[in-house]
Amino acid sequence: MAGFVAVHTGAGNSIDETKYQRVIKEACLRATDILRNGGSAVDACEAAIVRLENCGYTNAGYGSNLCMDGSVQCDAAIMDGSTLNFGACTNVSRVKNPIQLARRICDAQSSPQLLERIPPMILAGTGAERYADEVGCSLVDPAVLISSKATFQFNHYKSKYDLVVNSRMGKSAAEEPVVVPEPGNEVELAAALDTVGAVCVDGAGNTAAGCSSGGILLKVPGRVGQAATYGAGCWATDTDELAIATCTTGNGEYLMKTLLAREICHGAFSSDCAVTSLHRTFKQKFLDSPLLPRQQDLYAGALTLLYYPGQSSGEVMWSHTTQSFCVGYMATNQRVPKFVHSPLPTYSVPGRSCVVNGHNFHLRI
Amino acid sequence: MAGFVAVHTGAGNSIDETKYQRVIKEACLRATDILRNGGSAVDACEAAIVRLENCGYTNAGYGSNLCMDGSVQCDAAIMDGSTLNFGACTNVSRVKNPIQLARRICDAQSSPQLLERIPPMILAGTGAERYADEVGCSLVDPAVLISSKATFQFNHYKSKYDLVVNSRMGKSAAEEPVVVPEPGNEVELAAALDTVGAVCVDGAGNTAAGCSSGGILLKVPGRVGQAATYGAGCWATDTDELAIATCTTGNGEYLMKTLLAREICHGAFSSDCAVTSLHRTFKQKFLDSPLLPRQQDLYAGALTLLYYPGQSSGEVMWSHTTQSFCVGYMATNQRVPKFVHSPLPTYSVPGRSCVVNGHNFHLRI
Repeated sequence: MAGFVAVHTGAGNSIDETKYQRVIKEACLRATDILRNGGSAVDACEAAIVRLENCGYTNAGYGSNLCMDGSVQCDAAIMDGSTLNFGACTNVSRVKNPIQLARRICDAQSSPQLLERIPPMILAGTGAERYADEVGCSLVDPAVLISSKATFQFNHYKSKYDLVVNSRMGKSAAEEPVVVPEPGNEVELAAALDTVGAVCVDGAGNTAAGCSSGGILLKVPGRVGQAATYGAGCWATDTDELAIATCTTGNGEYLMKTLLAREICHGAFSSDCAVTSLHRTFKQKFLDSPLLPRQQDLYAGALTLLYYPGQSSGEVMWSHTTQSFCVGYMATNQRVPKFVHSPLPTYSVPGRSCVVNGHNFHLRI
Repeated sequence: MAGFVAVHTGAGNSIDETKYQRVIKEACLRATDILRNGGSAVDACEAAIVRLENCGYTNAGYGSNLCMDGSVQCDAAIMDGSTLNFGACTNVSRVKNPIQLARRICDAQSSPQLLERIPPMILAGTGAERYADEVGCSLVDPAVLISSKATFQFNHYKSKYDLVVNSRMGKSAAEEPVVVPEPGNEVELAAALDTVGAVCVDGAGNTAAGCSSGGILLKVPGRVGQAATYGAGCWATDTDELAIATCTTGNGEYLMKTLLAREICHGAFSSDCAVTSLHRTFKQKFLDSPLLPRQQDLYAGALTLLYYPGQSSGEVMWSHTTQSFCVGYMATNQRVPKFVHSPLPTYSVPGRSCVVNGHNFHLRI
C-alpha cells in the first residue's frame, strides 16, 4: 500500500539539528514500513511518535523535560482524520509511550460503553495511568522516563531559577521586580520546545496527526499542555476533496489559546493554496491574535500534510515563527527519508514573523 | 455599579426544578450584591458558582457525581471577556471550590513568571491541588465533597452497571453484546447532567463566563470534562460593539468535540440576531456536526449573555436540546431574581432539536 509520513522534533531557536537527523529518519522509515504493509495512517503516526519518544533526545516520553519539582509529566494526543476521533492523555508519569495511550483512548471513542456512557476523550494523571494498565500499555517507574540529559538540564535551570528567586527575596517588597532573568536565560528556556509530532496519509487516503511532549522545562506540576489539548496540538480532517493533518509545537499556552492546529486545518478548507492559507493562519490567527499578549515573542511551528484524493497527490508543509524547525518526510515509494532543517530567513524576526515552505508528493500504489 | 448575572444548574431530561429554584436565586443575589459594590464580572461569576458548588444539590463541588471507582473528581473553568484570559482545573478532589482555583489560574495569566515562563492555563490532579494550596484556596479531605445523595446515586447505578457487566460475562464471547442496558437506564444516566455555570456583565461592560462540574456519573477516573476544556465549557469575548459570554452543559465529550462555547460566541459576532445565531450554531455546529456520532441523541444546553455597550442593553438567552433547562437571572436594579424552567416544546425530539428563548435587559447605574 502507498502512503506518506512527515515528522518533526520541535521548532526552536537554538537547535542542534545533527542530533535529530538520525531519529527523524528512523521514525520515517518505521512509519513507511507500516504503511507499505497495509497499516493505517493512525498506526503509522503512532509508530513514528513511539520512535521519537524512545530516543531520549526529544522532549517526549523518555527524556522529557522535568517539572519544577523534578518530576516527569507527559502529554500526548492523536486524531484520526477519517473518523474525527481524538484521544489524549495528560500528566502521565508512568506510561512508557504516552502516544500509545492517546491512541487507545482515540480508538475507544467508536466503541459504545455499557449504559450508553460516552467514552472519555482526554484522561489525566493516575486515572489515565490506571486506564493505560487496563488497556495493555506498558507502565514503567517514573524514574525510567528521566534521562541524564533531562536531569542535567533541570539542575542547570533550576539553580538559575533559585538564584533569581533568592535575589528577589533579598530585595524590599516595594521594589517588586517581577522578572529578573539573567541575560539570555529566557532565550535558552524558550528554546527547549523540542516536542514531537507526526502526520500521515495512508493508501486509503485517510490521514492522522499526533503529538507528544513533556511540556516546558520547569513547568508547574499538573500543567496541561498543548499536546493534550483538543484543537491545539494536532488536528486531522478528511473530506472527498481534501484530507488534511497537522501537528504543532511552540509556546504551549499560545498554541492552546489560539487552537492553532484546528485553525490551520479550517483555514486550508477555505483556500486553494496551502502556502497562502498557512501564512494567513499564522499571521491572523496566531501572531496577530487578540487572544495572545501583544509585547511577547510568539513561538509556533506546524507540520502540515494536505492530500487531494482526486489527484492522489499532496503537499507536506512546514511553517514556523522560531529560528528553526527540524522535519523529515518520506513516501512509501522512496527508499530514504528526506531531512530538512528549516531556518527563518535572516531578515525575519523570530517570534514576530513566519516562514512557510514545503514539498509536493504523489502516492503511487 | 450596574450589572447583570445569569446562572444555570444544568440541562437535563428529567429535572425536578423545585430543588434548584432556591439556590439559583441565592446565586443571583450573591452575584448582584458583588456587582452593586463595584465587583467585576469575574468576581460575580465566581461568587455565583461558589454558591452553586456549595449547595449539595448540583453536580459541582460538594455533591458532585462520583467516578466509577467511587472517587470524586471536579472540573471548573472561568474566562474573562475583557482580557480573554482563561483558567481551568481538572481532576481535583481536594479543592473545596474548584471555580476559585480556576479563577486564580485565570488571573495569573496576566502575571509574567520568573525566567519568562508562561503561566499555565489548565492544571490537573495533585499538581493542581498543590497549586491551589499555594495560592490560598481551601483544601478539604475528598470525603468532605461527597454528599450522601451522591453516594446513594453511585451505589444505585454502580450496582446496575455491575449487573450488566456480570450478565455479559455469563454469555459466550462469540455473542459479544456491547451494550445491554436495562430499559430506561441510559435516560437516567444521561439525565444526570446537572453541571453549573454563570455568565455576568459588570458596570464597565466587561463580561465573564464560568462553569463547574463533577462530570458524568460513573465516569472513568481521570476523565477531563467540558468544564475544564478550553472552548467547550465557557467562553467570553468583549468588543466595542458586542460583549458576549456563554457557558454550556450537556454530554461533555460532545461539547468538547464541537468546542460549543467558542462556536456560540463566534457565531454571535457574525449575526445581528441572537436567536437566529444560537439556533444556527446549535443546528450546524452541534446537532449536524460531522464531529459527532450520527445515531446518538445529542444533549446540550447553553446560557448566553449578550451585551451591546453602545446601548447599555443586552439579552440573556437559554438554548437546549434536552427536555428542560433551569436558569435564573437578575439585574442589579432588580430586587428579586427571575427563575425559568425552560421546557423543550412538546413536538420537539430531545437530543435532536433545539429551543432558544431569552429576555432583554438594560443596565442603569
